[in-house]
Amino acid sequence: MKVNHVPTYTMSEDEVSKIVKSCDTHKVPIVPYGGATSIEGHTLSPNGGVCIDMSMMNSIKALHIEDMDVVVEPGIGWMELNEYLEPYGLFFPLDPGPGATIGGMCATRCSGSLAVRYGTMRDNVISLKVVLANGDIVKTASRARKSAAGYDLTRLVIGSEGTLGVITEVTLRLQKIPQHSVVAMCNFPSIKDAADVAIATMMSGIQVSRVELMDEVQVKAINIANGKDLPEIPTLMFEFIGTEAYAREQTQIVQKIAAEHNGSDFVFAEDPEAKKDLWKIRKEALWACFAMEPNFEAMISDVCVPLSHLAELISRSKQELDASPLVCTVIAHAGDGNFHTVILFDPNIEEHRQEAERLNKFMVLTALSMEGTCTGEHGVGTGKVKYLEKELGVEALRTMKRIKAALDPNSIMNPGKLIPPHICF
Amino acid sequence: MKVNHVPTYTMSEDEVSKIVKSCDTHKVPIVPYGGATSIEGHTLSPNGGVCIDMSMMNSIKALHIEDMDVVVEPGIGWMELNEYLEPYGLFFPLDPGPGATIGGMCATRCSGSLAVRYGTMRDNVISLKVVLANGDIVKTASRARKSAAGYDLTRLVIGSEGTLGVITEVTLRLQKIPQHSVVAMCNFPSIKDAADVAIATMMSGIQVSRVELMDEVQVKAINIANGKDLPEIPTLMFEFIGTEAYAREQTQIVQKIAAEHNGSDFVFAEDPEAKKDLWKIRKEALWACFAMEPNFEAMISDVCVPLSHLAELISRSKQELDASPLVCTVIAHAGDGNFHTVILFDPNIEEHRQEAERLNKFMVLTALSMEGTCTGEHGVGTGKVKYLEKELGVEALRTMKRIKAALDPNSIMNPGKLIPPHICF
Ligand SMILES: Cc1cc2nc3c(=O)[nH]c(=O)nc-3n(C[C@H](O)[C@H](O)[C@H](O)COP(=O)(O)OP(=O)(O)OC[C@H]3O[C@@H](n4cnc5c(N)ncnc54)[C@H](O)[C@@H]3O)c2cc1C
Ligand SMILES: Cc1cc2nc3c(=O)[nH]c(=O)nc-3n(C[C@H](O)[C@H](O)[C@H](O)COP(=O)(O)OP(=O)(O)OC[C@H]3O[C@@H](n4cnc5c(N)ncnc54)[C@H](O)[C@@H]3O)c2cc1C
Repeated sequence: MKVNHVPTYTMSEDEVSKIVKSCDTHKVPIVPYGGATSIEGHTLSPNGGVCIDMSMMNSIKALHIEDMDVVVEPGIGWMELNEYLEPYGLFFPLDPGPGATIGGMCATRCSGSLAVRYGTMRDNVISLKVVLANGDIVKTASRARKSAAGYDLTRLVIGSEGTLGVITEVTLRLQKIPQHSVVAMCNFPSIKDAADVAIATMMSGIQVSRVELMDEVQVKAINIANGKDLPEIPTLMFEFIGTEAYAREQTQIVQKIAAEHNGSDFVFAEDPEAKKDLWKIRKEALWACFAMEPNFEAMISDVCVPLSHLAELISRSKQELDASPLVCTVIAHAGDGNFHTVILFDPNIEEHRQEAERLNKFMVLTALSMEGTCTGEHGVGTGKVKYLEKELGVEALRTMKRIKAALDPNSIMNPGKLIPPHICF
Repeated sequence: MKVNHVPTYTMSEDEVSKIVKSCDTHKVPIVPYGGATSIEGHTLSPNGGVCIDMSMMNSIKALHIEDMDVVVEPGIGWMELNEYLEPYGLFFPLDPGPGATIGGMCATRCSGSLAVRYGTMRDNVISLKVVLANGDIVKTASRARKSAAGYDLTRLVIGSEGTLGVITEVTLRLQKIPQHSVVAMCNFPSIKDAADVAIATMMSGIQVSRVELMDEVQVKAINIANGKDLPEIPTLMFEFIGTEAYAREQTQIVQKIAAEHNGSDFVFAEDPEAKKDLWKIRKEALWACFAMEPNFEAMISDVCVPLSHLAELISRSKQELDASPLVCTVIAHAGDGNFHTVILFDPNIEEHRQEAERLNKFMVLTALSMEGTCTGEHGVGTGKVKYLEKELGVEALRTMKRIKAALDPNSIMNPGKLIPPHICF
């Protein structure tokens, strides 16, 4: 259908292609730039060069309601897109940092609180258009929901962090706004109990749409930042969706699981505004932490393990965090086995920085020892480069480097990111 | 947990690596070979060479019940795997041809009747081990459910049809066997009505687990082959899963949608055996066609379009098929917009072959004109090579060729498949 959405700027795909081609000719580095909410130094320019502000391509090109998909330019934000989609009863279920753009979300293979139900960016993109280093404009797939037509270029570009090309168009799979949702909070005497309930819920086969875990420190930060008085103990936040009867049925099953693990009675957010408010608070949890230490910086760890290891990972990490002189909060997309900590430190104090690094490393190595990954959703950037070889082995990295060299022989696309510098082939 | 499963053979990953390396040194082509159920000439050896029978690596290496995943060698069949998993209340939801192996299923990016609910092979593989042309054994990902650690090598190999490497290990995401399922059939005066109901069902947001469509000719073939007396008119087969209450609720909603489009009352398969029998009959529908023309061969088309175009694609194809002198059946994973025809022809009659080709081409070009794909699930092999450029453009194919050349410089891995021979860069 014809789209009623006025883009703010009008940079075109052809212009991007010309810029990139010219940079390739002159061997000038390019850093694509979206919402700049990424966390691992993705948009740093260690070698200088040209930064392309993709927020200048932010139009909605076509909405196909019957196919539940939308074709957008990469610079549009997920929040802006969802505002546009709401009147049609549709939404896009990935919710990373407020301000993130669809292009940046593709490039980082992001996820968020709803990934447990709808999958990550990997699962929700139908096709892309990408400008490669040589200026070629590549269409990665048709608009069909599924296809077996050749290599999965869509997925190759998703998670490539601007190192293979510039995304200039994205076709996204959309979801129906659920008829009904139940949002509930539940408290636990220990963080292990909370993690165990998240695991047991997933194992029960129940399709929750969110299972978010916070420790007592994170809840405290939220209370301070938002003037709330939530009980400052380990907490799970759930969302159940579907028809009213179904959501109620699911809620009862999970309330029972929680009770078996020392959980409190569920406290429900009833009206739509209260629900929205709760998820907004959760989404902004990182910023809430600064309410505790306004002049500090935050280092954010992001590991993910097979679900059966989550409780142990969290318990071991929590012990280490509690013993540290730094203030640290725990926050997890628990249903996926995805675990974050926010480590607050004074950037002017070298020991602080080192301690933050030590804690981050402790969590990564613990996750890797449990067959996990050094990044569940934030990506590699420069921050996680040093852990990739331990996680995947040198053969995998050599393979990535070969692909990179084949598509970007002059290494102009976001150099210094994702692939460790020592890898050669 | 320790696995109680005795593999039939014991070829090892190291042996595969040695074979491949040696072939690379001597520039000898390799064709990996799984269950040989693929449909587009995937396992032909146009240049001779070595065929590696992957069914010789068919052990189950580890089952992680709490993580709902399993680590297998590639030669195990999906049916054998599901027999093994059943006592644990788990299953793997991809169901291509009976006899297909997990390795072949990865290599073709297959799907099947349950993809509408669980996604395709792309969505259900956690990680792979792959022997590349140089003999490197590459681990593509950790065992975590989600990860943003580098290029998505897992997805690059899924759908690569043996042209990038030999898959030697697969970690699969499993599903709980649903508590309850409802299986129902519904008849329609026209195939367009049936297609419209499939579309309306998907648009309603209902999570069906199967929506399979058959035309009157396909039902007739099934009746002859299986001694059944199903009404020989266009038919939809549905499956709804979940708790009993939920499955019932969903069934009622869809029954109502069907009634609005001239559908009959639902006929239910009640006991577990009757349900299994029905899906078995559906799965073997291709073979049933030979009951009508025992000495003929079958050409099977496999296109997929955005759902809103399905009814029109089917109507236009059906007109063309009905006007043809050849016997043709229609069969579709309708919820995905994925549409097959089985075209029966006498391989000894040149006009037959040409007519089958013409019909196949008609359907592909019609699908492409609707932003669809030339293959929804069967893959490219040699059969669809000629349509790829029209679907994706030469830039995409050049990109694929570059990747292929980077990972397999001597072009020993399943040469002649997937990438059109005229593409150069
Ligand atoms: C408060 C907060 C909460 C967050 N919560 C989550 C969460 O729950 N889940 C999660 O996954 N992440 C989360 N994040 C991280 C962040 O929001 C994501 O990584 C997001 O996907 C980044 O998108 P962006 O548009 O800001 O990208 P940027 O930061 O602008 O760029 C990220 C990378 O993508 C590349 N890039 C950007 N646009 C393009 C393009 N068009 N083509 C090619 N490459 C491009 C850049 O070069 C860079 O490498 C959070 C961040 C914050 C600050
Ligand atoms: C009756 C019938 C019904 C079918 N229904 C469906 C359906 O519903 N959905 C669907 O998607 N398909 C369907 N198919 C097609 C077929 O079953 C799939 O394509 C299947 O995935 C092929 O698996 P296989 O083990 O038989 O592979 P093979 O035919 O042995 O090989 C297929 C390709 O994979 C490569 N390969 C095999 N093993 C490996 C390995 N270990 N490493 C690397 N490459 C490898 C081969 O080189 C070849 O290119 C059907 C086929 C039949 C006969």
